[in-house]
Amino acid sequence: MTPSSAVKAALSAQAIETPSWAYGNSGTRFKVFAQQGVPRTPQEKLDDAARVHEHTGVAPTVALHIPWDRVDDYAALAEHARARGLKLGTINSNVFQDDDYKLGSVTHPDPAVRRKALGHLLECVDIMDATGSRDLKLWFSDGTNYPGQDDIRSRQDRLSEALAAVYERLGDEQRILLEYKFFEPAFYMTDVPDWGTAYAHCLKLGPKAQVVVDTGHHAPGTNIEFIVATLLREGKLGGFDFNSRFYADDDLMVGAADPFQLFRIMYEVVRGGGFSPDVAFMLDQCHNIEPKIPAIIRSVMNVQEATAKALLVDAEALAKAQREGDVLGANEALMDAYHTDVRPLLAEWREESGLDPNPMAAYRRSGWAERIVAERQGGQQAGWGA
Amino acid sequence: MTPSSAVKAALSAQAIETPSWAYGNSGTRFKVFAQQGVPRTPQEKLDDAARVHEHTGVAPTVALHIPWDRVDDYAALAEHARARGLKLGTINSNVFQDDDYKLGSVTHPDPAVRRKALGHLLECVDIMDATGSRDLKLWFSDGTNYPGQDDIRSRQDRLSEALAAVYERLGDEQRILLEYKFFEPAFYMTDVPDWGTAYAHCLKLGPKAQVVVDTGHHAPGTNIEFIVATLLREGKLGGFDFNSRFYADDDLMVGAADPFQLFRIMYEVVRGGGFSPDVAFMLDQCHNIEPKIPAIIRSVMNVQEATAKALLVDAEALAKAQREGDVLGANEALMDAYHTDVRPLLAEWREESGLDPNPMAAYRRSGWAERIVAERQGGQQAGWGA
Amino acid sequence: MTPSSAVKAALSAQAIETPSWAYGNSGTRFKVFAQQGVPRTPQEKLDDAARVHEHTGVAPTVALHIPWDRVDDYAALAEHARARGLKLGTINSNVFQDDDYKLGSVTHPDPAVRRKALGHLLECVDIMDATGSRDLKLWFSDGTNYPGQDDIRSRQDRLSEALAAVYERLGDEQRILLEYKFFEPAFYMTDVPDWGTAYAHCLKLGPKAQVVVDTGHHAPGTNIEFIVATLLREGKLGGFDFNSRFYADDDLMVGAADPFQLFRIMYEVVRGGGFSPDVAFMLDQCHNIEPKIPAIIRSVMNVQEATAKALLVDAEALAKAQREGDVLGANEALMDAYHTDVRPLLAEWREESGLDPNPMAAYRRSGWAERIVAERQGGQQAGWGA
Amino acid sequence: MTPSSAVKAALSAQAIETPSWAYGNSGTRFKVFAQQGVPRTPQEKLDDAARVHEHTGVAPTVALHIPWDRVDDYAALAEHARARGLKLGTINSNVFQDDDYKLGSVTHPDPAVRRKALGHLLECVDIMDATGSRDLKLWFSDGTNYPGQDDIRSRQDRLSEALAAVYERLGDEQRILLEYKFFEPAFYMTDVPDWGTAYAHCLKLGPKAQVVVDTGHHAPGTNIEFIVATLLREGKLGGFDFNSRFYADDDLMVGAADPFQLFRIMYEVVRGGGFSPDVAFMLDQCHNIEPKIPAIIRSVMNVQEATAKALLVDAEALAKAQREGDVLGANEALMDAYHTDVRPLLAEWREESGLDPNPMAAYRRSGWAERIVAERQGGQQAGWGA
Repeated sequence: MTPSSAVKAALSAQAIETPSWAYGNSGTRFKVFAQQGVPRTPQEKLDDAARVHEHTGVAPTVALHIPWDRVDDYAALAEHARARGLKLGTINSNVFQDDDYKLGSVTHPDPAVRRKALGHLLECVDIMDATGSRDLKLWFSDGTNYPGQDDIRSRQDRLSEALAAVYERLGDEQRILLEYKFFEPAFYMTDVPDWGTAYAHCLKLGPKAQVVVDTGHHAPGTNIEFIVATLLREGKLGGFDFNSRFYADDDLMVGAADPFQLFRIMYEVVRGGGFSPDVAFMLDQCHNIEPKIPAIIRSVMNVQEATAKALLVDAEALAKAQREGDVLGANEALMDAYHTDVRPLLAEWREESGLDPNPMAAYRRSGWAERIVAERQGGQQAGWGA
Repeated sequence: MTPSSAVKAALSAQAIETPSWAYGNSGTRFKVFAQQGVPRTPQEKLDDAARVHEHTGVAPTVALHIPWDRVDDYAALAEHARARGLKLGTINSNVFQDDDYKLGSVTHPDPAVRRKALGHLLECVDIMDATGSRDLKLWFSDGTNYPGQDDIRSRQDRLSEALAAVYERLGDEQRILLEYKFFEPAFYMTDVPDWGTAYAHCLKLGPKAQVVVDTGHHAPGTNIEFIVATLLREGKLGGFDFNSRFYADDDLMVGAADPFQLFRIMYEVVRGGGFSPDVAFMLDQCHNIEPKIPAIIRSVMNVQEATAKALLVDAEALAKAQREGDVLGANEALMDAYHTDVRPLLAEWREESGLDPNPMAAYRRSGWAERIVAERQGGQQAGWGA
Repeated sequence: MTPSSAVKAALSAQAIETPSWAYGNSGTRFKVFAQQGVPRTPQEKLDDAARVHEHTGVAPTVALHIPWDRVDDYAALAEHARARGLKLGTINSNVFQDDDYKLGSVTHPDPAVRRKALGHLLECVDIMDATGSRDLKLWFSDGTNYPGQDDIRSRQDRLSEALAAVYERLGDEQRILLEYKFFEPAFYMTDVPDWGTAYAHCLKLGPKAQVVVDTGHHAPGTNIEFIVATLLREGKLGGFDFNSRFYADDDLMVGAADPFQLFRIMYEVVRGGGFSPDVAFMLDQCHNIEPKIPAIIRSVMNVQEATAKALLVDAEALAKAQREGDVLGANEALMDAYHTDVRPLLAEWREESGLDPNPMAAYRRSGWAERIVAERQGGQQAGWGA
Repeated sequence: MTPSSAVKAALSAQAIETPSWAYGNSGTRFKVFAQQGVPRTPQEKLDDAARVHEHTGVAPTVALHIPWDRVDDYAALAEHARARGLKLGTINSNVFQDDDYKLGSVTHPDPAVRRKALGHLLECVDIMDATGSRDLKLWFSDGTNYPGQDDIRSRQDRLSEALAAVYERLGDEQRILLEYKFFEPAFYMTDVPDWGTAYAHCLKLGPKAQVVVDTGHHAPGTNIEFIVATLLREGKLGGFDFNSRFYADDDLMVGAADPFQLFRIMYEVVRGGGFSPDVAFMLDQCHNIEPKIPAIIRSVMNVQEATAKALLVDAEALAKAQREGDVLGANEALMDAYHTDVRPLLAEWREESGLDPNPMAAYRRSGWAERIVAERQGGQQAGWGA
């Protein structure tokens, strides 16, 4: 196995971006269970994110969602972040919550709606200029619910056109991260349903367009690590939206549903050179019933544990067994790392990094949970609608 | 094939219940797109339902959802229905939208929450007494999002206890229809996830507890008509919640996603003696993007068309081919009915029944759509939240 | 709707290739149920295929599988076909049944095995030269059963290399059709698991490499018509392997499991310009329990019926409803064609084409089934193993 | 957490039955890759099974499959086992490999075929009398490939009748274990497709009929541990057929595809009192590409590791967190045991039990693999066909 010192050095280079919206309320179509102490402003979301970074040491940036995090002065917001040891991260666009987008945004049959949607995307690039963000994450809920409802191919043409216009607007250091999703909220056809579609569009756009893999956005049974390996081989993996699922896009805490899958994904990341600044590690989750800040701390820890295990794989032993066609030996080389309990190693790494060895306990002791419940009275809690 | 006169006679005996909530707004967790002219009261929902029945002739009852359709005077509501040629149908309970139910209702670890939920269920039976409804449809969103979150078996015990208490309260002519659902809104474990679980509970409760099959509540690939045939064989099929799906519980118009599956289901209903008053045919759909009243008319027509095809199957030819092990011949006997275009037959049946042969066109001509947009100004539109 | 004369003219241009192996025995891993009268030689397979073409009029070519159809003299085999009104079609390679391929063929860790596999693929091009076939269909069963068993990315590199070598060898009018498959016989990772992977490889190879869509090779819930529309838009759809499925790669008769899906696929073919000689319509099925020749006749008829319905779609009405955002109207325009019973139209077309209006009945009357049972005594029945 | 001494004591009580057929050749419908040294007789299978038990200490019984393991003298076979420290275990019937069973066995439309199938099942009970086996495992491949092919309900009636006849024949200490399977080899409808169907039949039969859960026989996404908990609560869990899967019934080594799922299953077993002699722990796997004996050793170890983790769960901490609605705390209590590396504990347990701490290495050192390759020359290798 890789020596633990090397693993710890690698872990120090990892950064996991947390999403502003995960600090706010979320739910299912049946009910949003509001939680006490939830932020009411982008600033308060950053305050919470700062707690996650303080206790884990690996969550230094926060993704924003426009319009949910729209502010008048992004420089001031960036300063608010900086003062708490954070930076603003990826800008996430939203072209799915305006009444005009009922039948689509950039793929809508009506050119006026398409122009409006494109306008929003371009505004997001303006915001990136203001926040200094590198990445624009594009998720399109666009699709249709019924066969025949709209023309699949024309919608691809319209999508292409919008993407090209956004790409054109990007600065030299800016990127599009194009997200795909199997289904929901569209229930018959989704305009960017799989990695192949996202890849084909990104390929035509150019090097500043990259695919983002949301781990909850695949058909049942899909081998996600294969996609990761393939996109890395093609130079087209821009990042991850981490979460976990048992069924659909459940948006549970990453690592909660299938920790072995997360490990296999992280192994392909490490093996394929994806453990680099070019690949953004982001969370995209909904904490519908569990308290949000500790859920995010746990999620960050889960990614970190999976990463540590992936780093522990004895690459030489694995390659040797693979070369020799030793099926059981090669599988064992991988499983050996997976079965290792890396929690002691991570506790060590945290102590060496000046952190509490147990982030969950440290957060509990901090009193932050009680404080925000007490202080955040009145106002409008943040959620998907605002 | 069965003579068309026999088919038409059978069709005249069919009744399809429409759900009050399908006339109101609905959506996904991402967005509810409100529609103009949507009802603001249970009375207005009945007004819309009356249009569906007027044009189709087979939708004489309306399911209510408590508390969404809670009124002070159910006798008056029943009278409102009667005056429009309708009757009040199944009562649907709701133990998933109160903040107390975040971790469950009748299966909640806290006995106080369980008592509250049971109280609601018993109130629903009171309402049934007032409305003269036969059936209480129970859908429990109960479940857990994370492994370990709660004890699977204890939750079954609690569920059992609540069901027994409700059963005890039923009048002689009243029934429990217990619904199962694969997942959502619970994302790890659902307390009534499959027909087996619903069946096991109903069996213990007794003859007044029956299983209801929601056609959108199954794992990918599930052979739903097998379940229908099995439940009929066991005397435990209480009814259907019809809708259709490509992915999860998409709640699309029934027959829209897989019309052949709907036909196969209706064939098993006919074959198994389920074309009887003991089996309730209900819709349970969400018209997120399409206009609601015509969508419901279309859905009713889709069920009727599938039924007509099922009735057309040449049972003798089919049985002969099956007996002889003639795989292709037996399949062809079934497909022959499916491939038949039954729309002319249904147009005939409608004309003979004093209806317009084309319900969709008749509704469009009626001016109702324009009228409700004009008249239903102000107030609070009905939706899942109210 | 499109006038039926136009539909009939279009149908006359359609050709559906039948696979030589579907005339032989096939089964599951549990059992191959041999059938009486099954061909023992490639010539006898062609004799059976000629029956299918005689009765349907649209199955003029037969796909060969090497080594199952290996003969000493391909010119003589082509002549055997020609004498029966047939032509030899696509050549299908087989790099999955030699003991050397246990851990892969062109992706195998051992270069000697890769060389052997490549040798076979090149031999197939030699055979194409001899048979005059245009297309080489490549399906690789390559993959791994266990995580870690082999290196995902290295296998992609090896695959790339082999494909390039085959591409290089192609004549000007020859093509590679690259097939993808979700899983089976590999149970953890398949080297060409989805259209995205096949597309990425074909893109690099060049215009003579095209993707083939086997309708049974997708994850549950996959929207196959979206893939068809996308590949046509990209100019990368080389053809179809038709069959149908309820679960995995069930290889049932096309149109048997989800006739509505088949219609939607054919609609995208028509709409996207895929109803052209550049797109090969092939069957790839296993008739495990039903008699093979009538099953293939039925399958050809099913494709034809779906095509007729797709051709019947009123493109103008559909486009208008789509443009206007009329969800129900657009869906109805599509469904109107689907619900049409095209069997009378096809019977007409057959009579006008000098065929029996009922191919199944004509085949039954022909006595061929009885004749092959009587005549094909002794010898080794054809199957997947030979 | 539970003290490790208690865990070790519990582990000493565990027994995992290995299946005779897993020592023989197996494959997919595409190819069986024969392996050198594979047993040629039931006796040689027992010889191999003895190696597994020798190195693991927890595999004392071997399941037989009739007719694959048919011998003239079962007493002699039992003695052969006994001499190697083994006992004969569950008898597995086979009503899927005779040509007569093409369209079904006990559910076949032809009564003569049904009689033949029943005769085989009764013969299996005779064999149980001779071998002293307690359990008869019944898996029926029965089903249909096409809608309409046979009558779903009549097939249930026939199944019922056959099961009753077998039940009647059982001795006082004998049991039926009824297996269900989602699909394969039937591709439209399977006669015992889910636990609900198996449960309903077993309930009617009586206490000596129990359901067996094959971990690879479920629809995608099915929560298997829920089924385990439910069957235990109903007193109807007879045992497990362990294996693992990514897609369909892949029959990979148990614990290879989703070790976390295996842990959750074992946790429900422990929690529900299923860690008892009434619940049979059996493997049912196919080692298509990996060497068989070490694959079985690894599988036994995987079950043991999952069991150890399940036993380690701090039941008190878990129950407390569940009671308090502490979602993250309850999840953490479960995950804490899962994340524990139990390999040192198991090594200890082995040493205390007089075993080599590393069964895989001990087997490799034993020379058995080389010996069987050298000695087992000629003859007919065992496989599914014989």
